[in-house]
Amino acid sequence: MLIREVRVTPVAFRDPPLLNAMGVHQPWALRTIVEVVTDEGLTGLGETYGDLDHLEKVRDAAASITGLDVYHHNAVYAAVAAAVGADVVTDLHGLTGAASRVKTVDRVFSPFEVACLDIKGKAADRPVVDLLGGRVRDAVPYSAYLFYKWAGHPGAPEDAFGPALDPAGLVEQARVFVGRYGFQSIKLKGGVLPPRQEAEAILALREAFPEHPLRLDPNAVWSVDTSIEVGRRLAGVLEYLEDPTDGIDGMARVAGEVPMPLATNMCVVTPEHLPEAIERRAIGVLLIDHHYWGGLVRSAHIATLCATFGIELSMHSNSHLGISLAAMTHLAAATPSITHACDTHTPWQDGQDVIAPGALRFADGAVPVPDGPGLGVELDRDALAVMNEQYEKCGIRARDDVTYMRAVDPSFSTRRPRW
Amino acid sequence: MLIREVRVTPVAFRDPPLLNAMGVHQPWALRTIVEVVTDEGLTGLGETYGDLDHLEKVRDAAASITGLDVYHHNAVYAAVAAAVGADVVTDLHGLTGAASRVKTVDRVFSPFEVACLDIKGKAADRPVVDLLGGRVRDAVPYSAYLFYKWAGHPGAPEDAFGPALDPAGLVEQARVFVGRYGFQSIKLKGGVLPPRQEAEAILALREAFPEHPLRLDPNAVWSVDTSIEVGRRLAGVLEYLEDPTDGIDGMARVAGEVPMPLATNMCVVTPEHLPEAIERRAIGVLLIDHHYWGGLVRSAHIATLCATFGIELSMHSNSHLGISLAAMTHLAAATPSITHACDTHTPWQDGQDVIAPGALRFADGAVPVPDGPGLGVELDRDALAVMNEQYEKCGIRARDDVTYMRAVDPSFSTRRPRW
Repeated sequence: MLIREVRVTPVAFRDPPLLNAMGVHQPWALRTIVEVVTDEGLTGLGETYGDLDHLEKVRDAAASITGLDVYHHNAVYAAVAAAVGADVVTDLHGLTGAASRVKTVDRVFSPFEVACLDIKGKAADRPVVDLLGGRVRDAVPYSAYLFYKWAGHPGAPEDAFGPALDPAGLVEQARVFVGRYGFQSIKLKGGVLPPRQEAEAILALREAFPEHPLRLDPNAVWSVDTSIEVGRRLAGVLEYLEDPTDGIDGMARVAGEVPMPLATNMCVVTPEHLPEAIERRAIGVLLIDHHYWGGLVRSAHIATLCATFGIELSMHSNSHLGISLAAMTHLAAATPSITHACDTHTPWQDGQDVIAPGALRFADGAVPVPDGPGLGVELDRDALAVMNEQYEKCGIRARDDVTYMRAVDPSFSTRRPRW
Repeated sequence: MLIREVRVTPVAFRDPPLLNAMGVHQPWALRTIVEVVTDEGLTGLGETYGDLDHLEKVRDAAASITGLDVYHHNAVYAAVAAAVGADVVTDLHGLTGAASRVKTVDRVFSPFEVACLDIKGKAADRPVVDLLGGRVRDAVPYSAYLFYKWAGHPGAPEDAFGPALDPAGLVEQARVFVGRYGFQSIKLKGGVLPPRQEAEAILALREAFPEHPLRLDPNAVWSVDTSIEVGRRLAGVLEYLEDPTDGIDGMARVAGEVPMPLATNMCVVTPEHLPEAIERRAIGVLLIDHHYWGGLVRSAHIATLCATFGIELSMHSNSHLGISLAAMTHLAAATPSITHACDTHTPWQDGQDVIAPGALRFADGAVPVPDGPGLGVELDRDALAVMNEQYEKCGIRARDDVTYMRAVDPSFSTRRPRW
């Protein structure tokens, strides 16, 4: 079953002004939609980042895999690696850790791998979860992903979510998300306000949601000392503390001094980082992300590795659409060791998507595994065209939270540690 | 695609008197052949050990997986684990390391997993290698697996292979195997004669085969000091030294003092052993074996783990038939990090098999990946019936090299270290 054609379509969708350590989300989030078409007429879908440097590599790779067999992941990987060459694509936002050649190749490969799995699932009339070993859970729990945010983008009216700049605002945001989706875990994106204030927000969430596991993610902008101080203050409150400080060395120094596990999607982002992180006992939870860990099968391999070393698993998320949510759900449903609720930005999409409605839904904070063949989602071509037009018109070609923030606050600093 | 029926057939085939640290191979080697039949009429094959304690677990598990979906490996594994319960099945020969509950479950699960992959391959009209990511090599190199051996079994005439009890005999055995199969690597099963004599044999092989990578495997019967002494003596001669001494601690102490990597299929036999072996830097090569590492997919996961930590891979072998050889070949063909020639006992079968001839062959010491659907091999029902009858009549119900050796040499000791 050979790849006859690959279509690569950049899209943009409206994104609220979500705050983080690197600034604030721009009005448009970018993604790239990949369609792989076989000589037998089956189509598989993949979704990846939309930054132009990455998009160009995805396009180069798309050309290089035409003619290959959808079953031959190793050959597709080799073709992608050759297309990427020695180049390293770096994100401006830096929120998923350091760039490297391995990570660049793994990121470009991922949407093609997912698309090939989608095709193989359709060919066998089987959901992707079955290609990964079958369900260990019927629905995948996700967390309510809270952000500090402005009421609306600068110069625009208040958005549908409203402001959240203090504990009360976050508790209200959590009530809306928990009420609407049924989430049973809550994550706060931190690194925005001084650590003491973010700890206060966590304590307010604990009071409002006494049973929900809570997480805090300051994206590595705290010093080791600050991380230890906040970690100790939140003893018994946090399920885990995510990337409080920068690098494996810093994380290891914190891990030994705080009572909760540390989680990461920043200091361990390729297999190359695992040996040192394990030797140093730097992390207790890895937030796996198939978008940069080289696809679903490779992520399953890494999950076995983590389980072998007693590292627990959750899942990382950037702003994404339904193809990614479907892929994440199939992977987590088939992976016994993903025992923590996964992250998702889905609520912030506010209904925007490139897939036809109905395949994905939340029930009690979890997404039931789609049971249609492949990923179980279908492209909505009209929506894709609209989002592609939005991409063409929006003028954004790379996610750049820093520059957007500096347009509002020219003194905004990305220094690490900031606190 | 549901499992409608599982057939479990023990078989026996003639085995020469191959010597090892635990004694000598009995006249009959035992295996168990598993056939999984689906409600759609597809049949998948698996092969595993034949010892009665294990066979009984396989039979219990076979009953428990009926009605499950062949795609649902996780569910099949759970059913096998439940059938095994808390029991631990121990080998009498001890040549593949310590028994444990995990290993017991993984061993019982393996033939069913292989059979399910065989079925899924047939359903998709694809070789199993394609279900594992596709070929990274078209043929899998194996090593010439040399044994010290008697001319024939006690009381029986000389067998087709003749004696090999000194360097000249082993060189002659190597010439026959290399001439017949084209092997490009050579392994000597040691632990039989005093280490100095086995080192002499290696040096004789080096002289006769100056370009062939050489390995020596004394099955952990040397002391740490002896291991270091022999390792240093064979500097520049051995590709790797396999299980010279017992346990991760001993192996780690040897590894730091000898110039070649240490390999193992004894001190690391389940995922539980990997963290300590890695932390202690005890091994450079893992001999993976899907028969006790929980099947082909799990072995692929472990291969990624090993690659992540810089551990190279080869493959372990016990006496086996063609279903196992096919499974090993598909796995190694799809796994980039299996870079060392794999072990196989195939030449010692001397043509006996349960599969129809023609699917598997050696060319230049490598087995071309079968390209038929699934494993690419078919059961020879007449041969299966003959081998099952041999099982019924042979009287052997567990491999017991020690007792067989003691019938000849009552003073035979399995003390570790022996030297």
